[in-house]
Amino acid sequence: MRALGQDYRSIFGDEDGQGVVIIDQTALPHRFETRRLASLDEAVTAIADMWVRGAPLIGVTAAYGVALAMRADDSDAALLEACARLAGARPTAVNLAWAVEEMRRLLAPLAPSERARAAYAAAAAIADEDVAINAAIGDHGLAVIRALAASKPGQTLNIMTHCNAGWLATVDWGTATAPIYKAHDAGLPLHVWVSETRPRNQGAFLTAWELGEHGVPHTLIVDNSAGHLMQSGLVDLVIVGTDRVTACGDVCNKIGTYLKALAAHDNGVPFYVAAPSPSIDFSLREGRDIPIETRSAREVTHMMGRVESGGLATIRLSPEGTGALNHGFDVTPARLVSGLMTERGVVQANAKALAAAFPERVAG
Amino acid sequence: MRALGQDYRSIFGDEDGQGVVIIDQTALPHRFETRRLASLDEAVTAIADMWVRGAPLIGVTAAYGVALAMRADDSDAALLEACARLAGARPTAVNLAWAVEEMRRLLAPLAPSERARAAYAAAAAIADEDVAINAAIGDHGLAVIRALAASKPGQTLNIMTHCNAGWLATVDWGTATAPIYKAHDAGLPLHVWVSETRPRNQGAFLTAWELGEHGVPHTLIVDNSAGHLMQSGLVDLVIVGTDRVTACGDVCNKIGTYLKALAAHDNGVPFYVAAPSPSIDFSLREGRDIPIETRSAREVTHMMGRVESGGLATIRLSPEGTGALNHGFDVTPARLVSGLMTERGVVQANAKALAAAFPERVAG
Repeated sequence: MRALGQDYRSIFGDEDGQGVVIIDQTALPHRFETRRLASLDEAVTAIADMWVRGAPLIGVTAAYGVALAMRADDSDAALLEACARLAGARPTAVNLAWAVEEMRRLLAPLAPSERARAAYAAAAAIADEDVAINAAIGDHGLAVIRALAASKPGQTLNIMTHCNAGWLATVDWGTATAPIYKAHDAGLPLHVWVSETRPRNQGAFLTAWELGEHGVPHTLIVDNSAGHLMQSGLVDLVIVGTDRVTACGDVCNKIGTYLKALAAHDNGVPFYVAAPSPSIDFSLREGRDIPIETRSAREVTHMMGRVESGGLATIRLSPEGTGALNHGFDVTPARLVSGLMTERGVVQANAKALAAAFPERVAG
Repeated sequence: MRALGQDYRSIFGDEDGQGVVIIDQTALPHRFETRRLASLDEAVTAIADMWVRGAPLIGVTAAYGVALAMRADDSDAALLEACARLAGARPTAVNLAWAVEEMRRLLAPLAPSERARAAYAAAAAIADEDVAINAAIGDHGLAVIRALAASKPGQTLNIMTHCNAGWLATVDWGTATAPIYKAHDAGLPLHVWVSETRPRNQGAFLTAWELGEHGVPHTLIVDNSAGHLMQSGLVDLVIVGTDRVTACGDVCNKIGTYLKALAAHDNGVPFYVAAPSPSIDFSLREGRDIPIETRSAREVTHMMGRVESGGLATIRLSPEGTGALNHGFDVTPARLVSGLMTERGVVQANAKALAAAFPERVAG
């Protein structure tokens, strides 16, 4: 999408075909910086330390990480080690495991000397596939938005999202934002409520930046405001992303998503999840089976931002010595989900509909 | 309660009987500072700029504000002006209007020369009454906690609260925290989940500090975590405060309370509201009639805290120019409330039960 006045992707191969370039998302919105990843170590760090984040982008970065590993050492042992280290860099998103397994399956049968080139091409193909998937999600989501707009003629539609399921979380388009960008570009009047998404503020830091760069009207809110805005009739539609959808349609996503889903349900607001198929885990039935990542307490007790003088500073919020617990995700039960926006259309959040939409993914 | 190793109140008359001393709550948890208020202007500023906050404490501060005004000018006109300015300093909490009206009704019939002394005594009496009310809430809430503890023998009870309905929000004990302090002091094993309460972080700044000073085990969480903790069985009880309860039992409280109530309801977790009777507004039936304060966008886009070197700094979180909307409160429908912990016992959140508990407050 548009950033700094030009078209950008969140990850792309560098010109010499030896490395891969990412946008360092820990510096946004205050600084726009790209970084070149040249080794497996750097790819693992980029994922674990959240230079890149967002389930789809993590998967693509891991695929490139395998390619970088193969350049250094194309042996069977190196392939297995690279896959294991990358898959373990973050636990919750299923795209990571999916992308790593795709790479392993493709590369393992090849002669070692062929692996580096094949891996690089495969990573680029996964990136392109991600763009195509999200563009398709955007088209299907746009139809939902158009239908809603038709029921409220002349009104600006208010769409709420959570965290950053934008193009920065994918390669381009985003998942939850793809329908928003498509609707905006098509001239539909809309406004986005951006929830800041504590503790890491991906809404305030990334989604607000993205929407601003692309020119989509938006307003920042604290996560706590979601219910009151819905009670006040100021939300027409919620679209969020996902890190993992189970076979039954339970949705794991950024912590706080479940609270928005409850409020949407209580107020009759449609609640959609943009779910590219690599985020759907047909091997898990129930949301309670999803491992939920626990992250550092410091993400809760401290915060980074820009001081008046222009530099960046990290501040401590809570009293010294106060402990914090920091779960990264929660699970929204399928019963609260109006529909899953996938690349194959909008699918009901239940086992039967999911199996019908993706028959090749269902075992047995 | 205990702070800095001694017993404190959040507001108290100064030794010469000419002013009133408050704890500057904008500096906590990083600095503990008291301030002397000596004029009506200072009292209005203390309320509007949230040097003091919390519905009960705002009411007490306003009562002292009337007394300060009467020392400077004890005319009828000055009385009316003081009452109007104080009542308008913040719109949502009903205690403020209640305390100001109490003072006006008491002082208006008096000879001007008697007003200053009478006002000071009345403000002190309102403060003492607040302490007695909250101690009684604590006793009734303790019974709820004891019953819950009896059903889970040998377990540490996990109690969640929101914002700061602690002694810093009242004169002593707090509302939501009174049962917690009483249970802790009685030796019941308990642990408190403190939600940080964006945007002003009263949980992270004040409740964590309070509980730490008094020695109550607690853990800080982001507001987004409430649902996941309840889904995980890690919350036995929620107790929050309130800024206004309607005659039907709808509860206006800090923004985000409604989301916690929805999650509690969805997970079968008891959700109690500590409601001193001055917070109950029998003149309003429905929660939607309560005016909801909109505060500065800067409270969302900026945050203050302590930098590594020890000083305080304010950082900007979001991109420059990003707009924010900042509603201070939301309304939790009575249907989601397990009970109101009042000074007269635990009352069901409905019009009949409230009228039966406070018959003298019900008109006609």
